[in-house]
Amino acid sequence: MAENGGTDLDVQFIHSHDPEHPANLICTLCAKFYGLGWVTGTGGGTSIRHGDHIYIAPSGVQKELMKPTDMFVMDFNTKAYLRKPQTHKPSACTPLFLAAFERGAGCCIHTHSQWAVLVTLLVERDSSKDALFEIEELEQIKGIGKGRGKSGNLGYFDRLRIPIIENTAHEEDLRESLEAAIEKYPDSYAVLVRRHGIYVWGDNVHKAKTQCESLDYIFQLAVEMKKLGLPWTK
Amino acid sequence: MAENGGTDLDVQFIHSHDPEHPANLICTLCAKFYGLGWVTGTGGGTSIRHGDHIYIAPSGVQKELMKPTDMFVMDFNTKAYLRKPQTHKPSACTPLFLAAFERGAGCCIHTHSQWAVLVTLLVERDSSKDALFEIEELEQIKGIGKGRGKSGNLGYFDRLRIPIIENTAHEEDLRESLEAAIEKYPDSYAVLVRRHGIYVWGDNVHKAKTQCESLDYIFQLAVEMKKLGLPWTK
Amino acid sequence: MAENGGTDLDVQFIHSHDPEHPANLICTLCAKFYGLGWVTGTGGGTSIRHGDHIYIAPSGVQKELMKPTDMFVMDFNTKAYLRKPQTHKPSACTPLFLAAFERGAGCCIHTHSQWAVLVTLLVERDSSKDALFEIEELEQIKGIGKGRGKSGNLGYFDRLRIPIIENTAHEEDLRESLEAAIEKYPDSYAVLVRRHGIYVWGDNVHKAKTQCESLDYIFQLAVEMKKLGLPWTK
Amino acid sequence: MAENGGTDLDVQFIHSHDPEHPANLICTLCAKFYGLGWVTGTGGGTSIRHGDHIYIAPSGVQKELMKPTDMFVMDFNTKAYLRKPQTHKPSACTPLFLAAFERGAGCCIHTHSQWAVLVTLLVERDSSKDALFEIEELEQIKGIGKGRGKSGNLGYFDRLRIPIIENTAHEEDLRESLEAAIEKYPDSYAVLVRRHGIYVWGDNVHKAKTQCESLDYIFQLAVEMKKLGLPWTK
Repeated sequence: MAENGGTDLDVQFIHSHDPEHPANLICTLCAKFYGLGWVTGTGGGTSIRHGDHIYIAPSGVQKELMKPTDMFVMDFNTKAYLRKPQTHKPSACTPLFLAAFERGAGCCIHTHSQWAVLVTLLVERDSSKDALFEIEELEQIKGIGKGRGKSGNLGYFDRLRIPIIENTAHEEDLRESLEAAIEKYPDSYAVLVRRHGIYVWGDNVHKAKTQCESLDYIFQLAVEMKKLGLPWTK
Repeated sequence: MAENGGTDLDVQFIHSHDPEHPANLICTLCAKFYGLGWVTGTGGGTSIRHGDHIYIAPSGVQKELMKPTDMFVMDFNTKAYLRKPQTHKPSACTPLFLAAFERGAGCCIHTHSQWAVLVTLLVERDSSKDALFEIEELEQIKGIGKGRGKSGNLGYFDRLRIPIIENTAHEEDLRESLEAAIEKYPDSYAVLVRRHGIYVWGDNVHKAKTQCESLDYIFQLAVEMKKLGLPWTK
Repeated sequence: MAENGGTDLDVQFIHSHDPEHPANLICTLCAKFYGLGWVTGTGGGTSIRHGDHIYIAPSGVQKELMKPTDMFVMDFNTKAYLRKPQTHKPSACTPLFLAAFERGAGCCIHTHSQWAVLVTLLVERDSSKDALFEIEELEQIKGIGKGRGKSGNLGYFDRLRIPIIENTAHEEDLRESLEAAIEKYPDSYAVLVRRHGIYVWGDNVHKAKTQCESLDYIFQLAVEMKKLGLPWTK
Repeated sequence: MAENGGTDLDVQFIHSHDPEHPANLICTLCAKFYGLGWVTGTGGGTSIRHGDHIYIAPSGVQKELMKPTDMFVMDFNTKAYLRKPQTHKPSACTPLFLAAFERGAGCCIHTHSQWAVLVTLLVERDSSKDALFEIEELEQIKGIGKGRGKSGNLGYFDRLRIPIIENTAHEEDLRESLEAAIEKYPDSYAVLVRRHGIYVWGDNVHKAKTQCESLDYIFQLAVEMKKLGLPWTK
């Protein structure tokens, strides 16, 4: 089916009374994320893989007001839109969400959290080495998985490392450096984007959402630690 | 119709079951803005242009409790009140809202956000040049339009500039300097008022609200950056 | 009627379907104040004068869960309890609420707001002069009345002055110094209590609540100003 | 009954229309704690003793979404699970909750509050003496009980002391040092865990919850005091 084949008449993809259906769940999650300050002013986005269907929140909508009828649905194999509301633009995050889904993720969340942005500003840009947010010995690190295909979560004495990529003028142009970061740090479930925010994913909605929360908690704590002169690592 | 012609019996202007009707929407927005800390203690205000009718939240009401019956309605052409609740005073922001509507805005929001006030305090007053809040290279800047009559939004590498005007004893006396700031910075969708807050507008409610959120996010980030010793511009 | 005359069977004082009835309104207000961080862990309190009846939230209850049946009702003239729930203790704030009511207040709010506590810590204790929180040139100052019996609110160029009294081991022992502060600063609608919180009142619920919000906004701003090295007065 | 004897078919322990029933109350509390930032990303936990039954929130669930059917129920005397949902893991906090219950507590709350973590980072680790968070002369200290078996709460002039124990790789391994801290500071209703969070308990749900709130308030205030250069004790 051609990309223009999808129309907003395709209600079969989004009509469900099950609150766990991706079309409903993305709305619930986005309203919660708005309350957390992650998707202020139409920023950020969320996408869920449901079998071979990718559900994606559209660009430019007030995330706390989103309705299932706003949802884009893409075929994972052909990348053709199965549902494409004519009143909205597809999310510029789509190629980045796909990069996560192609590596096994079931859900990917993009936030503009101020704590994420601030930690990217507190890690110096140094062309001689990769930019990394690193912190250790915080209980909340145990909220993050060890890595794709590995069982269990990081331990208290493991150092958390999140790669930071440089921002680009256009969000879709982040894909190359985001994929390079994932390839180099295959155990990371997140990539920070300098002066922009973060992409966090997980095997399923539960893991993506709770990892995103744990990371945001750690970033906020890290910013407060910096204000108080406390080091992130030994 | 004379200014006193409008009474609170004119329910036809405010009675609608449509949540998108301006009389209902201003109430929903004000309750949300209260939660964001923008309209604490009856501060701030919101106005929507609906064809030739201007809907304005009254002065001195608890914004989170506002009801459609509290609403003032003004004729845009004659500036006469079509509806004027006898129990309330018209908003002192009215001339400032009108200045925005006369330049094409469809909605104007006035907040007392602490982040807005703090950035006005962090920009030095210097009689030899205009006071401007300036910041660059933040993704959230892309949430702000390029300017009236221009298509699309600012880019990541564009510098955001918001003029700052000095506060006056009476809110209505801000009109002259607000209009001067708009004339000098015609692409700006907002004017900061030193030690007071901000006026933000947009072509419609969606744009005014999301631009106001994006700016508030940027101001909060800017204050946190200052605490951490991070510069706003290069 | 003796103090023990009131029992919790006296439902006539608290049973009303009107959300504006004091027994209902105190519950709604306290739930809101809990969300604002003003009455954490059973701290703080609220009282409304309704004709000759004083409605008072009890001591030691979770304020966000309060029910009309929890309410104490006192006769303003005799100071006898008309209603005294046997399961609760009367609020230790009662003498302080009465001090405000005896000076014409219609509602009095006591919060443990952290911003209020922090400003009391930022004003030095100096036995040679009264402790005062002073700030000027903030628009939000216009949310505070000029003083009892005076019409209208403070202006932007008026300096806001809130007396600070020293805390005592027992809350009821604050009455003497609170009354002395009111007598010395008769135009103030609030008294800060060092390392403790604030008492704010107003002619009616609307004024007490919005003045309490405006003051809390100003205290938070003042703390942030201090962190950023910005002076409170010229 | 053997530990495996409990299954999730044992609905009699969790089915009640009474909102005060532990199975319902833990859900309500956890949703509230999520809003307070105490149980972000499945962190933290809550347990209530109800006669000889211990109700425990499971490990790894989104605390704001918890349902009574998620609940574990343990026999206090035999420590066997009477109800053990097969889809969840028991909370690693269980031995720590039991340590509190064995000393008379009726409810125990474990949070990852950032304020708690930050105060543990602000108290230096010194092998020559116990690590203690100490603060004095704050009204909110009066929200904390004098100690087990003692009547009434701390006074304004009493110094609040909360022992801090070092974190371990596995939560259950905290039990020994937590019990040692309780034995050494038998009047404390809480133990801080460095870089981790806090355990707070009380004779009943009301006391555990309000003490946890009061402590969190004090920790937040203490962090803000540190930023402003204000000492915790004289």
